Amino acid sequence: MSSEAKCSKPQCDKSVAINELARRRGFFWPSFEIYGGSGGFVTYGPLGARLKQNVEAKLRELMVKKIGIYEIESSIIAPGKVFEASGHVAHFKEPMVECQKCHTRFRADHLLEEKNISSKETEKMNLEEIKQELIRHQVVCPDCGSPFGEPTRYLTMFETTIGPYSGAVGYGRPEAAQNIFVEFNRLYNVAREKLPFGALQIGHALRNEISPRQGLIRLREFTIADLEFFFDPEEPDCQYLTEVEDEVLPILLCDTRLKECEDITNFTVKEALDKSIIKCQWQAFFMAQAKRLLNQIGVPTEKQRFIEKLTWEKAHYSTQSFDQEVLVDRWGWVEVSGHAYRTDYDLGCHMKASGVDMTVYKEFKNPIESEELIVKPIVAKLGPVYKGDAAKVAAAIAELPARQVADAMEKDGSILVEGYQILKEQVEISKQKTIVRGKRFIPHVVEPSFGCDRLLYIALEYAYGIKNDRVVLGFPRTIAPIQVGVYPLMSRDGLDTKAKEVQRMLACEGFMTDYDETGSIGRRYARADEAGVQLGITIDYDTIDDNTVTIRDRDSWQQVRASITNLPKLLQKYFKGKANFADLGSQIKS
Amino acid sequence: MSSEAKCSKPQCDKSVAINELARRRGFFWPSFEIYGGSGGFVTYGPLGARLKQNVEAKLRELMVKKIGIYEIESSIIAPGKVFEASGHVAHFKEPMVECQKCHTRFRADHLLEEKNISSKETEKMNLEEIKQELIRHQVVCPDCGSPFGEPTRYLTMFETTIGPYSGAVGYGRPEAAQNIFVEFNRLYNVAREKLPFGALQIGHALRNEISPRQGLIRLREFTIADLEFFFDPEEPDCQYLTEVEDEVLPILLCDTRLKECEDITNFTVKEALDKSIIKCQWQAFFMAQAKRLLNQIGVPTEKQRFIEKLTWEKAHYSTQSFDQEVLVDRWGWVEVSGHAYRTDYDLGCHMKASGVDMTVYKEFKNPIESEELIVKPIVAKLGPVYKGDAAKVAAAIAELPARQVADAMEKDGSILVEGYQILKEQVEISKQKTIVRGKRFIPHVVEPSFGCDRLLYIALEYAYGIKNDRVVLGFPRTIAPIQVGVYPLMSRDGLDTKAKEVQRMLACEGFMTDYDETGSIGRRYARADEAGVQLGITIDYDTIDDNTVTIRDRDSWQQVRASITNLPKLLQKYFKGKANFADLGSQIKS
Repeated sequence: MSSEAKCSKPQCDKSVAINELARRRGFFWPSFEIYGGSGGFVTYGPLGARLKQNVEAKLRELMVKKIGIYEIESSIIAPGKVFEASGHVAHFKEPMVECQKCHTRFRADHLLEEKNISSKETEKMNLEEIKQELIRHQVVCPDCGSPFGEPTRYLTMFETTIGPYSGAVGYGRPEAAQNIFVEFNRLYNVAREKLPFGALQIGHALRNEISPRQGLIRLREFTIADLEFFFDPEEPDCQYLTEVEDEVLPILLCDTRLKECEDITNFTVKEALDKSIIKCQWQAFFMAQAKRLLNQIGVPTEKQRFIEKLTWEKAHYSTQSFDQEVLVDRWGWVEVSGHAYRTDYDLGCHMKASGVDMTVYKEFKNPIESEELIVKPIVAKLGPVYKGDAAKVAAAIAELPARQVADAMEKDGSILVEGYQILKEQVEISKQKTIVRGKRFIPHVVEPSFGCDRLLYIALEYAYGIKNDRVVLGFPRTIAPIQVGVYPLMSRDGLDTKAKEVQRMLACEGFMTDYDETGSIGRRYARADEAGVQLGITIDYDTIDDNTVTIRDRDSWQQVRASITNLPKLLQKYFKGKANFADLGSQIKS
Repeated sequence: MSSEAKCSKPQCDKSVAINELARRRGFFWPSFEIYGGSGGFVTYGPLGARLKQNVEAKLRELMVKKIGIYEIESSIIAPGKVFEASGHVAHFKEPMVECQKCHTRFRADHLLEEKNISSKETEKMNLEEIKQELIRHQVVCPDCGSPFGEPTRYLTMFETTIGPYSGAVGYGRPEAAQNIFVEFNRLYNVAREKLPFGALQIGHALRNEISPRQGLIRLREFTIADLEFFFDPEEPDCQYLTEVEDEVLPILLCDTRLKECEDITNFTVKEALDKSIIKCQWQAFFMAQAKRLLNQIGVPTEKQRFIEKLTWEKAHYSTQSFDQEVLVDRWGWVEVSGHAYRTDYDLGCHMKASGVDMTVYKEFKNPIESEELIVKPIVAKLGPVYKGDAAKVAAAIAELPARQVADAMEKDGSILVEGYQILKEQVEISKQKTIVRGKRFIPHVVEPSFGCDRLLYIALEYAYGIKNDRVVLGFPRTIAPIQVGVYPLMSRDGLDTKAKEVQRMLACEGFMTDYDETGSIGRRYARADEAGVQLGITIDYDTIDDNTVTIRDRDSWQQVRASITNLPKLLQKYFKGKANFADLGSQIKS
């Protein structure tokens, strides 16, 4: 069990303070500590599991409820074929080095990162170049100081066997996207064969990291939210664009990055599209929604940016990619979502590997009329000339492109076919009208993809504040893991019974509640603030007389007095953002 | 891709009809069909994923919100040690036979089940007995008709390797309970070191089934909800008992089962406890909650039963176990939850394997005073008698139990110690008072455990009905995957624009909505009924004039007229069960 210094003062590293708080109050902690831990696995305790659900609910609210994106749930284990087709088996590898003495293994790109070589630069290097860089920067084993052996590449998927047949390789999915691509035909059917539509999957994913570090930022098992939005590239308009066109996106452009500069340019969605900074309307729309999501979990716009990916940073199929990053106290800019225009790459791969047609049919608004040239050998005229060879000659003529025959007849009056001079009158040249009513094509895909554990960590960091030397987790009220704490002023004289009644009533109305009767009321408020409990309801001796309670706000520490009868309705409004704290009751001195 | 007959007529096997409907409308289907499928994996489409979330939300409502059970979320992959300690590595095995010709492998207990030997009976058999039974019933390969080889036992966990170290074995968890047990100390801390408390985990789990069949009933990857409730066995009272004591539990008792009879006895929770039919209050409480959960997802009490497990069916540590079963059209009684009194077994196992103390301290209400008898050799008196042996003699006296020395002195005035006759005056006998203020003990555990995929399947089956030759999914309104469908009477004249506005407004108010403008209104209603859409809102020409809409009920097909302005408030009440359909507006002819 690893121990960390207790620290809740602002001058300390915030991540140390947050991790200590997270363990103590039950937001999250490293899993399996009683067995010495297992790097890269985390357990969310009661507060963390709720906070995570609330963050994910925000994502659903923005995408599923309001936009009508489908949600699916599929399996974490998948047959090998799926990840062979997607390219993961071939490419989902990381450069690794092993200490020659203590045999601990590290990710070479992470070691170089500490020498200020970004992992994006390392991505471009081959193993020999990585080796040279390690030597040049004199990188040695961080654990024992010994030199490393040759770098290798390691497949970072968890492998297993499905069923009792030794041959059936399965992998733990490293993302949730492939589940959507492989089920495209079924989903398209559910969508009544209409584009555009999108499907979201929020679920656990697995990456067998070589050396997971950084707590919630880099895990072996994590929660990903992958949204695949399918559309017709010839009809790329986003119907919700007007709802986001004035949203400002802070973008770090490729051009700026190439100048070794990190200046951010602010564009409204409309500007970014007009200036072709973002090429796809749907991509711009999802970037705006992603920005709003971060706003809603507590991150102001000025602490966010969208990095335009450079050519060598993008997957080869991607037309344009952006990473959404948030400024985090300890690690600087951290990626929280990726926005890739994946074109028809994924469906194309699975179509090829499975042999199953994944194209869709599109009816043209105006059917295309075209004229086809038809050349027909006239057997009655060939027969007398070529006798027994007539059929062969006729077949040879039919093999030739009609255009070629017609041109030759027009120009020369004859054409040489396998040694035979065919004359104009021996063939019939006609034009036939055809009407093409539609075509089949592979839909294009725009993908926003979110790391939910990072979202949770960031919600915690941005909620973390100090007031009068005490920690207050100032979550936005829509994601506070506990909405209402209920406290009897004293745990006797019937105040405790009354308080439990009130708590139960609110719980049955659907609020996330907590009950606490231990210690002074001040100490209970402090404990609640540290857990981010939004409102505190105190039952005192007046409550018994007039059925009113004190409601305390976590952030302002202000108090109002309200009747218990009105609580459910008032709190409903408050948590929906339709009432302010002052609307909850009559103000009293705190 | 496997194909199934289209069938939606009541005389057909219901499971065939439900599976067909599930695929077509996007509730669920077998995953990875484009790669020929992989048995035991399922994908929930848009309707299924929502229905599953709604069923799980019911579980949370009953346990987390109302009862204050903690919820945690941990990882699916766990280090080998966890499942070695829990006994899974040694015992989580199933009897398997392999066809000698086609080499297909089957679970021997499932094959015997088809010969009317329950898997519970097979559980008692060793491999030789299983072999004899297979021979006796002339069981051959269902695929090719050839005989089987020797039965073996197969570990039905998915195995993998954690990190780049070949030695670190990991398993996919076959249940969600162990994550709770291994984190007990942290959770007890979060509970401020007070019992009782409970922790629930809902998440994916993996069982590498030999031959998964039966669709959603037996999967390799499934969702489990394990609730571990920790309490002090000396204080076993459940504080919520009064809320459930009149709830009727239909129980199939051990005694009845031993008479080869399946008669159910109905007990109220109170009776079952009074008559010691259920031995633990908390277990009875959770059984009552489980019964309510099934009621709430649509299963009437008369289609439920609790089977008391026989001695050889229970895990050896379990004092008492019940399985909750529901009658399912195709498979008869199917287990949906298990209720085991696990005592201190699991925490004890992990304590032993990890060496980490998992006991809790309990302060006695009244400290126990006890008197301890002290016998002290008086060296000054032994010395003169025993000389150089005095120290040895003193030590020998000290070794004896004080009570024995005191009794002998009382009775005989002396005692023989290693050949020496020790006299009363050579020892000092005194009494010392000690106060024991508390003790350490391992908490006991009651576990309700639910299979969420089965709950979903059962919700679908019990919702499935035929009305006027059409399928209507009559979900309870609290779990309907789509709450409100919005339909313009015509997709022109501004009706479509208005309908989209209404849909968006309701979506932004938090309702799960759908929009459909294709086909006649009757056809849209039919399509909605088949998907279990609770209410249909139709926008017609009157809407444009007076801002009212028609609301149609899925079950009664009745229609009322209401103002758009009132919709959010009215629907909120309706879906909370605080208003009936007739309260939504003024009745009109349908």
